[in-house]
Amino acid sequence: MGFSTSERTAGSPSTVPVFFLSDSTGISAETMGNALLIQFPDLRFERRLIPFITTVEEARKVVATLDAAMDGPVTPIAFSTTAVTEIRDVLHESRCPLIDFFELHMSRVEEILGHPGQRVAARLHGLGDVKRYNARMAAVEYAIEHDDGQSLRALDKADVILLAPSRCGKTPTTMYLALQHGVFVANYPLVEEDFDTNDLPRPVRHLRSRCFGITTTPARLSQVRNERRPNSRYASLEQCTYELRRAEALYRIHKIPSINSSAKSVEEMSTVILQSRLPQFA
Amino acid sequence: MGFSTSERTAGSPSTVPVFFLSDSTGISAETMGNALLIQFPDLRFERRLIPFITTVEEARKVVATLDAAMDGPVTPIAFSTTAVTEIRDVLHESRCPLIDFFELHMSRVEEILGHPGQRVAARLHGLGDVKRYNARMAAVEYAIEHDDGQSLRALDKADVILLAPSRCGKTPTTMYLALQHGVFVANYPLVEEDFDTNDLPRPVRHLRSRCFGITTTPARLSQVRNERRPNSRYASLEQCTYELRRAEALYRIHKIPSINSSAKSVEEMSTVILQSRLPQFA
Repeated sequence: MGFSTSERTAGSPSTVPVFFLSDSTGISAETMGNALLIQFPDLRFERRLIPFITTVEEARKVVATLDAAMDGPVTPIAFSTTAVTEIRDVLHESRCPLIDFFELHMSRVEEILGHPGQRVAARLHGLGDVKRYNARMAAVEYAIEHDDGQSLRALDKADVILLAPSRCGKTPTTMYLALQHGVFVANYPLVEEDFDTNDLPRPVRHLRSRCFGITTTPARLSQVRNERRPNSRYASLEQCTYELRRAEALYRIHKIPSINSSAKSVEEMSTVILQSRLPQFA
Repeated sequence: MGFSTSERTAGSPSTVPVFFLSDSTGISAETMGNALLIQFPDLRFERRLIPFITTVEEARKVVATLDAAMDGPVTPIAFSTTAVTEIRDVLHESRCPLIDFFELHMSRVEEILGHPGQRVAARLHGLGDVKRYNARMAAVEYAIEHDDGQSLRALDKADVILLAPSRCGKTPTTMYLALQHGVFVANYPLVEEDFDTNDLPRPVRHLRSRCFGITTTPARLSQVRNERRPNSRYASLEQCTYELRRAEALYRIHKIPSINSSAKSVEEMSTVILQSRLPQFA
């Protein structure tokens, strides 16, 4: 909540101060606010998260911070997901323009569902459903244990097995699927000897329906590998081209869906993988 | 987008079909929708994500899916973050109640900012700022390399060093901070010999200001350790109580902020850690 004047007025004079207000982590407020702000690429924003606003007293301090920002050179904007009525009432006392996601949608959702909402500080990103939370944590552990084929022991336990040549972006995608969706993901790195035949590598051969391939462009792969082992055969454009061509052939022959990671984020790849292999998780 | 009748009518007859519609991953639509739905704990929802709706043709198929759901026993509800006007116009042709986050907020944000929004399919969870994206991916790699003190080489590069006895929840929190915030996080497991004195372990002694402690309850720690090594001294309540008491003493003596992981999610812990140690990332 510390918000010094020097921080506030830093940057260009036309930087818009943005506040994300929440009774919990603020992840929802940030997501919602940023989904709107991304439509204004010409503006500069200075974002400030104020999470865990759980008392009227804390809300009053936030109002003081917002009102101080109102006295600055550029009108600020605040996004709030706070649910408790008394706290929302205090926040609305600020002179700062406030987009209250809760207020605008809650009554409409209540009307559609024909049911009153609780209007309590709900921890969407809290422990929530403990069973589901524990599954997510177990999936992170599983992902770390099975990163880059380190352990082939429990491959049968995997919901999805990501196949790709080294450095195509398997690991961050694996972590994202585990952490956000509780999916058990194993990585299987395709190495040169896997390309000697057109068969799938033995450890994943009986698990074809769970496999998902990742590919990228030779130039991108060569660049990433060069960061790790500069000027090696491993990083050469020729070697990268060969491995990607052979990997893509394997995906094609065995009808394994695949995605090109060179222009996709881990979030986008994860969405495609879930839709393709695990619609029940999506 | 496949949505069979059997799936739709599965579960109790009062299950509400929920649709998340997006021109991108749908992460924002899910976050926003779920932040509202969590206020209705007595209702049951069957969630369906329909991401990457990028053409009018795809939007028409979605409308058919929504209208089919309307003919089911329970009125469905749809949440949309789609930004492109032509696609939104098609979605609004559906008979299904639609909470259009974009429509409801965009004009208000435009008015506050005094600037027109682009109204294009913007990839909030796409590659976005490539530099920032690459930093996140580098942070994931760093986290894996430094998981559980495996490598002390580049501890100086860490933005935050999480200290805790084994199995207190360092690893998932590390991964979350890396993946979502691009923070370089190292784990330093406190082991018995670290408790022989009141000094901080030598590798982190000069990095005190970057340390953050994690603690939990002895009962919880014993339970988690028992899953790994049943009936071991390591998992005994006595040993867990001792390690936690000594760890907490170290945090106190060296004024290292700490958090109890037993009742907090990784998202909540990450928010607290960022606010405490890295307000510039929060």
